Amino acid sequence: MHEHYVVAIGNAIVDIIGRCDEAFLARHGCAKGSMQLVDWTRTAQLYDAMGPTVEISGGSGANTSVGIASLGGRAGFIGKTADDQFGQIFAHDIRTAGVTFTTPPAPEPSEPTGRCLVLVTPDGQRTMHTFLGVSPRLGGGEVHPALVASARIVYLEGYLFDRPEAKAAFRQAADIAAKAGRQVALSLSDAFCVDRHRAEFQALIRSSVDILFANEAEITSLYQTRSFEEAAGRARADTRLAALTRSEKGSLILGEGRAITVPADPVSKVVDTTGAGDLYAAGFLFGIAAGRDLEAAGRLGSLAAAEIISHIGARPETKLADLARAKGLIA
Amino acid sequence: MHEHYVVAIGNAIVDIIGRCDEAFLARHGCAKGSMQLVDWTRTAQLYDAMGPTVEISGGSGANTSVGIASLGGRAGFIGKTADDQFGQIFAHDIRTAGVTFTTPPAPEPSEPTGRCLVLVTPDGQRTMHTFLGVSPRLGGGEVHPALVASARIVYLEGYLFDRPEAKAAFRQAADIAAKAGRQVALSLSDAFCVDRHRAEFQALIRSSVDILFANEAEITSLYQTRSFEEAAGRARADTRLAALTRSEKGSLILGEGRAITVPADPVSKVVDTTGAGDLYAAGFLFGIAAGRDLEAAGRLGSLAAAEIISHIGARPETKLADLARAKGLIA
Repeated sequence: MHEHYVVAIGNAIVDIIGRCDEAFLARHGCAKGSMQLVDWTRTAQLYDAMGPTVEISGGSGANTSVGIASLGGRAGFIGKTADDQFGQIFAHDIRTAGVTFTTPPAPEPSEPTGRCLVLVTPDGQRTMHTFLGVSPRLGGGEVHPALVASARIVYLEGYLFDRPEAKAAFRQAADIAAKAGRQVALSLSDAFCVDRHRAEFQALIRSSVDILFANEAEITSLYQTRSFEEAAGRARADTRLAALTRSEKGSLILGEGRAITVPADPVSKVVDTTGAGDLYAAGFLFGIAAGRDLEAAGRLGSLAAAEIISHIGARPETKLADLARAKGLIA
Repeated sequence: MHEHYVVAIGNAIVDIIGRCDEAFLARHGCAKGSMQLVDWTRTAQLYDAMGPTVEISGGSGANTSVGIASLGGRAGFIGKTADDQFGQIFAHDIRTAGVTFTTPPAPEPSEPTGRCLVLVTPDGQRTMHTFLGVSPRLGGGEVHPALVASARIVYLEGYLFDRPEAKAAFRQAADIAAKAGRQVALSLSDAFCVDRHRAEFQALIRSSVDILFANEAEITSLYQTRSFEEAAGRARADTRLAALTRSEKGSLILGEGRAITVPADPVSKVVDTTGAGDLYAAGFLFGIAAGRDLEAAGRLGSLAAAEIISHIGARPETKLADLARAKGLIA
């Protein structure tokens, strides 16, 4: 098998994206900026309420894989779909984006393909409600060992921790990567997700994670502190390399004994922040896998995040390699 | 039943929209700017080839209904979906846009909900390939007589002529409207569609159509002439009211013994022309149903068309009533 820069493991999700105002969030009890898991009843209720939508393939780890492919790196994805129309959309979009995706859909009858209702407020902030559907039915047998071992970096999304089956797949991938001498990267995904699995995340980070991604809310939740500086200090002690994102303040990279602040790239208008963290991770991991230094990796992260927040949806609309070349970040 | 400004009858379609270059169209033998009907094999082949996409509810008549609702007019739609995920998307989007839509989905097993592969080239032009699926299974029984009779204007999309069952529904709606003393509007939809049904369209226009919509290619195809002026002259003789759209040249309205040229609204960048004609019709029909004069109706058409071509997809992203109010076109 060809060597991949990154193979990501995550929930296979189609985003259902609609605009709403702040009052809608309040009326429906939505925690702005968060990702909440919802059951089918709540999904149907919110969907009925939320106005016309557009559907775009998503999923945190999948978005990262697509971002790496868009930068010109070979990327793979492992995740579970159903054999339904959303599953067909998901598979089509990730494959035609150039990502290796071979996980077979669940045989019928199964739960439907996972979906995320994304509510975008006028400030561009996104509030997400995810119905996982068949997505967590990712058995250990689906974690294709040769594909995982082919990756310079195996990237795991924290959201997988929300279901025991998926967590098993997660651990198996980490084991394969460790045995193959590969690096393991983890995204904490969401502050509430961290809250649900704090102890396990802390143990995993110390034992098995080479590269940690988190935003301010996630890293302070992980270490149960209000101080970003304190949380960053603890992340520095616990991991070899951490990239902590801070929205418009850019990112702080901790590794090789250094703390590097990388500015965010300017955006004329923040349209939809969905996927900002996923695409920052794409740029950063592309840089690391390509052997670039930490600062260059961070700048690639800022570039990819800026593209994604300038339009609706978490998949790049412009080839990121072209943008990176125009900025002199890749040859 | 409440009175509706407009009830449209058309194919219920979800658009699958992706970008491509001119070479892609040439390589796949696509007639740029046209709508071609395709079978499942061709649909699958093009879809596999076309790169990542976004899914947005579409359908010519449905887009027009949504545009009228967005302008603040009561609108309805009659069209056939399957009980599948695309059907659920279609029904959700049109209902939450405020359109009366009560056609039940076809019981399982059925063909799937119709879809249209929309290829958008860098110049913003769209080239469409439609797999109608269950859409033409619109029996006469589905044309809800009270809903049709409730409409000041019944709007029929020419695309319906492509299948005999749908054509029967089309004729039935025209009959109900005539008996209720309502107006019948027809869009010619596509030059190739006109070519397939020229004689029937000509007869229908003379016998049953009060308001005719066509673009230059369609009206010249209808009358088999290369001269737009000649075609316009014949349309003037055949119909009480005709609105002929000419892209950036605006539209020519023929009616009440007058020929009125209405300029197109300026657009900073043409992103995707999908739905331009549908939304022009929405603005124009809203104006006519609201009792506005022909020039005001045409200006509303230009306004709605300009909004739709400034972004991906054929459903308004901005409330058209707000745009019309800002321009002083509605109170």
